[in-house]
Amino acid sequence: MIFAGSNGPGSSQHSPGQQKIMLAHGGGGRLMHQLIDDLFITILVDPEYDAKHDAAICTAGGAKLAFTTDSFVVDPLFFPGGDIGSLAVWGTVNDLAMCGARPLYLSVGFIIEEGFAIEQLQRIVRSMRAAADRAGARIVTGDTKVVEFGKGHGVFINTAGIGRIDHGLEINPARIAPGDVIIVNGDIGRHGIAVMASREGLSFEPPITSDLAPLAAPVMALIEAGVNIHCLRDLTRGGLATALVELAQASGRELCINEREIPVSNGVRAACEILGFDPLYVANEGRFTAFLPPDDLDTALATLRAVDAEPHVIGAVSDAGSPLVTVKTLMGTERVVDMLSGEQLPRIC
Amino acid sequence: MIFAGSNGPGSSQHSPGQQKIMLAHGGGGRLMHQLIDDLFITILVDPEYDAKHDAAICTAGGAKLAFTTDSFVVDPLFFPGGDIGSLAVWGTVNDLAMCGARPLYLSVGFIIEEGFAIEQLQRIVRSMRAAADRAGARIVTGDTKVVEFGKGHGVFINTAGIGRIDHGLEINPARIAPGDVIIVNGDIGRHGIAVMASREGLSFEPPITSDLAPLAAPVMALIEAGVNIHCLRDLTRGGLATALVELAQASGRELCINEREIPVSNGVRAACEILGFDPLYVANEGRFTAFLPPDDLDTALATLRAVDAEPHVIGAVSDAGSPLVTVKTLMGTERVVDMLSGEQLPRIC
Repeated sequence: MIFAGSNGPGSSQHSPGQQKIMLAHGGGGRLMHQLIDDLFITILVDPEYDAKHDAAICTAGGAKLAFTTDSFVVDPLFFPGGDIGSLAVWGTVNDLAMCGARPLYLSVGFIIEEGFAIEQLQRIVRSMRAAADRAGARIVTGDTKVVEFGKGHGVFINTAGIGRIDHGLEINPARIAPGDVIIVNGDIGRHGIAVMASREGLSFEPPITSDLAPLAAPVMALIEAGVNIHCLRDLTRGGLATALVELAQASGRELCINEREIPVSNGVRAACEILGFDPLYVANEGRFTAFLPPDDLDTALATLRAVDAEPHVIGAVSDAGSPLVTVKTLMGTERVVDMLSGEQLPRIC
Repeated sequence: MIFAGSNGPGSSQHSPGQQKIMLAHGGGGRLMHQLIDDLFITILVDPEYDAKHDAAICTAGGAKLAFTTDSFVVDPLFFPGGDIGSLAVWGTVNDLAMCGARPLYLSVGFIIEEGFAIEQLQRIVRSMRAAADRAGARIVTGDTKVVEFGKGHGVFINTAGIGRIDHGLEINPARIAPGDVIIVNGDIGRHGIAVMASREGLSFEPPITSDLAPLAAPVMALIEAGVNIHCLRDLTRGGLATALVELAQASGRELCINEREIPVSNGVRAACEILGFDPLYVANEGRFTAFLPPDDLDTALATLRAVDAEPHVIGAVSDAGSPLVTVKTLMGTERVVDMLSGEQLPRIC
């Protein structure tokens, strides 16, 4: 994804003096957003490009393209429902899909730690190819680097992706409008819990598998069905809550969600209760939220069900208020949802 | 660069059984080529794409694009003549240029080790932006990950790049023809020696600085001058020797070079003699070789001199023989140049 910006409080109070990078700087929460604002948005990324998107929208020779990158450092490399290879391919495919782009080409960069078993690398590479084939994308270029034992961790994978936008729809936070319905395409929180459980040697009965999945097909189906999608966002690092807070800030709208309508499996709910996590902040890798005009809701739901998604309406955009997210809790009270400072679960992607 | 393939001896004798990745697998030599052949070319990369190029040539919406990626793990992060930031930007810009593509858009992915100083990150980010500006490319999207202390090494940076090909020239090894002259754009070996000296705390008098530089301008100048470029290749990991062996294998031609004509500074020559390195195999980050029909040589030399390069004719393509590289040594004898098994100097890019 792009370095997503934050306009939240404190975002410009970050002095680079003697400060050190902490794990929380990679967690998708407020610290990461501060770092991104101060260093990457301010200095690095060309100001013409909208840093609030999952991918950059570029033109080249008359073609309208989406371009995105992600590095993957997930620990462990293999987890229930996927591995770093399928994650690296679908993570980037999904960032393209969130711009309404059809994934075309992927690049792959490996950083391998000395001593890593070639058999494991082979499994990962096979998984990447299968994932690319399933998403209709082609891996066309790549690179390999090796670092000394103890200066990496198994394998890190970067993917970058190019997608083509061949429709006139503008899909971005600026189009979020009062009255829009907010949907998610399935139950949340399974990826983060599955990776964490695998890393910590916890087991649940029944086992919790990651929701990792390619999202180009459901998005293309919505576009082909004529649904006037206003905005899409995948629910990765920081989970549903962080995605919604980012979108509230980027759009200047108040987003009202209903906790009762947010789909969470019994297993994830139980695991979160035991471990003290809030499923709203747990990462997903096959889940997205879509903002739609209410007239298009029935078409959208039918279209998503036809591609095996289990969509739920979780809330709506208010016509009043400031850029924030409010949730009506299971108890019937209302609370404001904020970003966490860091991430509940590091290295889940 | 793309996973460059090797058809050399032994390339299919690589069994993935219990084998482990070694540093030499990242060195640009024969072991890296074996790994790439066995895993990446065979399994990962779409077979339609020519794995012998620095970048993949793709089309999107009618536009002819080049797409490439590289990860950078250089140690140390700052070295005489550059840093990991400028290296990461120009390394990818140069891979695009080697396809005759004008660099347009770059993505950046950071993998940062917990505890890394934010001040250093800021220096690197500023360097990247300046390098992109100088090369006429725009950084449009990015990603940040953080790994635990001791599971990374400072910062690793991946860049991917999109370039546009807006001329009819085919620039690839298949066009290397008997009689072509082989030129380089300046003296070789400075990058590898500068990084190694900086890492090991060696100092030379006068100091040796990296040749790191963006190569889009000289390549675009050659194209605009109407030079019928047959092939280009940057002289990175594995140096001039490895690049020429790759090109001999990819083209099926015998390349004859003259050691006396290969420009090596006195400092690099002295450092190599003391340290036991062969400058032919030392990495460069601002040097390329071009294959041209002899009729275009004068135009090419004048064009390169006009953009401050110091081109040298180092040899020619033979009209006989098998796919190999022969060098006429300073002593007047002739020897065959082969790939090294690994790399003389690890982590120089």
